Amino acid sequence: MEQLRIPGPTPCPDEVLQAMARPMINHRGEEFGRILHEVTAKLKQLFLTKGDVFLLTASGTGGLEAAVVNTLSPGDKVLSVEVGVFGERFSTIARQFGAEVIPISVEWGRAADVADIRRALASEPKIKAVLVTHNETSTGMTNDLAAISSVVKEFDKLLLVDAISSLGSIELPTDKWGCDVTVTASQKGWMVPPGLAMVSVSEKAWQAYDRAKMPRFYWDFKEAKNYLEKGQTPWTPMVSTVFALAVSLDMMLQEGLTNIIARHVRVGQAARGGIKSLGLALFAEEKYASNTVTAVSTSDGLDAKKLVKVMKEEHGIVLAGGQQSLAGRIFRIGHLGWVTEDEITTVIAALKSALPGVGFSKTK
Amino acid sequence: MEQLRIPGPTPCPDEVLQAMARPMINHRGEEFGRILHEVTAKLKQLFLTKGDVFLLTASGTGGLEAAVVNTLSPGDKVLSVEVGVFGERFSTIARQFGAEVIPISVEWGRAADVADIRRALASEPKIKAVLVTHNETSTGMTNDLAAISSVVKEFDKLLLVDAISSLGSIELPTDKWGCDVTVTASQKGWMVPPGLAMVSVSEKAWQAYDRAKMPRFYWDFKEAKNYLEKGQTPWTPMVSTVFALAVSLDMMLQEGLTNIIARHVRVGQAARGGIKSLGLALFAEEKYASNTVTAVSTSDGLDAKKLVKVMKEEHGIVLAGGQQSLAGRIFRIGHLGWVTEDEITTVIAALKSALPGVGFSKTK
Repeated sequence: MEQLRIPGPTPCPDEVLQAMARPMINHRGEEFGRILHEVTAKLKQLFLTKGDVFLLTASGTGGLEAAVVNTLSPGDKVLSVEVGVFGERFSTIARQFGAEVIPISVEWGRAADVADIRRALASEPKIKAVLVTHNETSTGMTNDLAAISSVVKEFDKLLLVDAISSLGSIELPTDKWGCDVTVTASQKGWMVPPGLAMVSVSEKAWQAYDRAKMPRFYWDFKEAKNYLEKGQTPWTPMVSTVFALAVSLDMMLQEGLTNIIARHVRVGQAARGGIKSLGLALFAEEKYASNTVTAVSTSDGLDAKKLVKVMKEEHGIVLAGGQQSLAGRIFRIGHLGWVTEDEITTVIAALKSALPGVGFSKTK
Repeated sequence: MEQLRIPGPTPCPDEVLQAMARPMINHRGEEFGRILHEVTAKLKQLFLTKGDVFLLTASGTGGLEAAVVNTLSPGDKVLSVEVGVFGERFSTIARQFGAEVIPISVEWGRAADVADIRRALASEPKIKAVLVTHNETSTGMTNDLAAISSVVKEFDKLLLVDAISSLGSIELPTDKWGCDVTVTASQKGWMVPPGLAMVSVSEKAWQAYDRAKMPRFYWDFKEAKNYLEKGQTPWTPMVSTVFALAVSLDMMLQEGLTNIIARHVRVGQAARGGIKSLGLALFAEEKYASNTVTAVSTSDGLDAKKLVKVMKEEHGIVLAGGQQSLAGRIFRIGHLGWVTEDEITTVIAALKSALPGVGFSKTK
């Protein structure tokens, strides 16, 4: 079987896949209610939050849209920290719904500079919220969210976090860091197929909700809260993925959040060390390199598209290319969720064998 | 195993469930692209449309929101035919996004009167679109969409159709009836778990799209169209449900749409005949009774909640209660998708045995 080494969907353990094949049950019945309550409680343990956590039947992008429309009004000024494709997407969503987006753009591959954020917040007191991507999947870079959040909280702003490819894999204590809405998605570190966005909602986010005027229906957090009290979701949920998540959450709690995070640190180091040993260069600033996805620069004649093809066809390893302006300039290795150091060693060995055939010559 | 006789999620054939357990693949790779193109082509055959068909990772309600925000602007007048919970939901969505909704309310259980729709359209020329529920799941009633559509088209209005619990089970030739956006969902007649909304988009809907000013991002049809050309979806799709849909569509095409519709007619008749033979009354006007869900009145002391409980615990058959103002006043039998007349006969036999214990005495 192929090894899926893209930054989501990630490989799923067999027990998780088997849960996907469970026959349907009544999504408004007692059994589903029990599962939904258990899954929610376990998610709170891994989000490290005492706030609300909701499951939305959607991909992660739907979760980002939910974060925006539940807390903001048209005309609101928001500071958006854009460090790649997904940061720009978060901005676009806010803009589409009428927010006035003040972007902080950072050269792709670099982390956001906390001083820039402080300066922007100081110079525009009307900013209501800060939008930030914790782990930027398109560049393989993790922002220093602890530092960013401390500035955002100093100015008492709402903090909306795209944690789609970080939460459950990279340290992110939701409450401690004052994240008001944190968004993740099932097909990332959670080892489950796509279909569910998971979002946390803080007390401050609920206060914002009460004033927020952006139109919303499907994403409405209050509906989610009211139905969750009955052990239901407002609209028919992705039942199979909830079954699967129930299984994967047990596996995650068994391993323990600290161990999971430490494993991702080791796997990330193995990926970066391996890449450098091949004479390739990391795309992201190494100090902020992500432990869930590694982006590799393809300078020196390396044909990224061909490499991805050869890796798949000859080595059975599926890598990802670059997105948008990074197409052809990088390739990416996903290493989040169900992954070990040994599996990354296998990827590096396959790359070593594939590289000479795709235009790369080690010069250093 | 329990027999799920609610109007969705519906039971899934084994082959479909097994497809849900397939390991993940790259949602931006060639194999997924091939599957997505095949699924889309087969859906068009069953929608009977030459227009566009898109898969949205969402429940059916998300598809309704998509229909609204892609075709309308705040302030637009829309005529909304409300015949139950789901008709009211469609209105609420339009209202939330700023449309001026002119409701045509019909006593629940009755079908919309085409003369009312004609009168409303004649008296308010500024109406842009008509929102209609084809099959109202909450009351077990199917509107005469052929007649409604012919009036809507006479006035050259946009027709947005909630076909969530009808399409693929009850006759609905999308193009022939001039449905501009038709919305259905995987967990209904399609025999697949929830998680996908499927929507068709006509040429007239695209013209409306170009003028529509409601905010949209996640639901954007143009994004769906652009990505579909590459064999992709804009956001990570519910991969497992797409695998499952590929299997169920083959089963449906094998049976043939005409045969499927005829089977639902027979199953619907079996349900209604059986209910009447027990001395129970149908909630919906029989002329318009739905072939996918039967609502049964619980007058004469019948305790609906207790009946649903006894049917589940003693007979292993899961029925649905009434929603909102119909709670306690009806119970519902779902018979759409993977269902035969024999299975309905089993339900009727179980009801016969359960009824005396839940307050019902046959008086006729």
